[in-house]
Amino acid sequence: MYVPGFAGASPEAKAAKNLNNFFNYIASYNREAYEEITEFLGSHSLNDGDKFISELMRESSQHKGLALRILEVRSAYCKNDFEWDNLKRLAIKMVNESNTRLMRDYVLETSPVEAEK
Amino acid sequence: MYVPGFAGASPEAKAAKNLNNFFNYIASYNREAYEEITEFLGSHSLNDGDKFISELMRESSQHKGLALRILEVRSAYCKNDFEWDNLKRLAIKMVNESNTRLMRDYVLETSPVEAEK
Repeated sequence: MYVPGFAGASPEAKAAKNLNNFFNYIASYNREAYEEITEFLGSHSLNDGDKFISELMRESSQHKGLALRILEVRSAYCKNDFEWDNLKRLAIKMVNESNTRLMRDYVLETSPVEAEK
Repeated sequence: MYVPGFAGASPEAKAAKNLNNFFNYIASYNREAYEEITEFLGSHSLNDGDKFISELMRESSQHKGLALRILEVRSAYCKNDFEWDNLKRLAIKMVNESNTRLMRDYVLETSPVEAEK
């Protein structure tokens, strides 16, 4: 099956890049430093995880410690905690359920209303 | 490890939802119907894959055929062609490489410039 390239990157590499940002987002949820992170988030976007960390490292020495902790957590999380098999199972299930729903909704919408007997 | 919930959804379910949109994006790249799709994309966003398909189905009967083809392709793609093992390998590699780069850049930036001998 032909799939489009992304400036030379494979679809898997593009999806991996998105997951990198996602793992960073998860690792940034830190109950111990909740206030610092929340305040920092007010002026810095988490969309680009690496840019976020780069800025966090340069904010103050306390923020730097927090940034290093996030790097540690995101690395451990993607290796040990994220359920890769479950991701595959859920994604395939979701595509098929979405397909069914989209077709069913269309069919229901375009069926003539049955006259009351 | 504690991970934040997403309105009751697991991180894996959230990532699966993103992949659903991503597979839809890939399946929408269609060389046979390139012009129709390109024109339709001018006024409809691919960010939400299911919304895109729902709108495409209702555009015209020709677009409806195209939408059904995209549903078929995205289902086959995620089951048969997407390299799940490769995704896992690349994502873990990318997180670790990003971590190393972020720390190295910081270290380089903050090291005192060596005086010329």
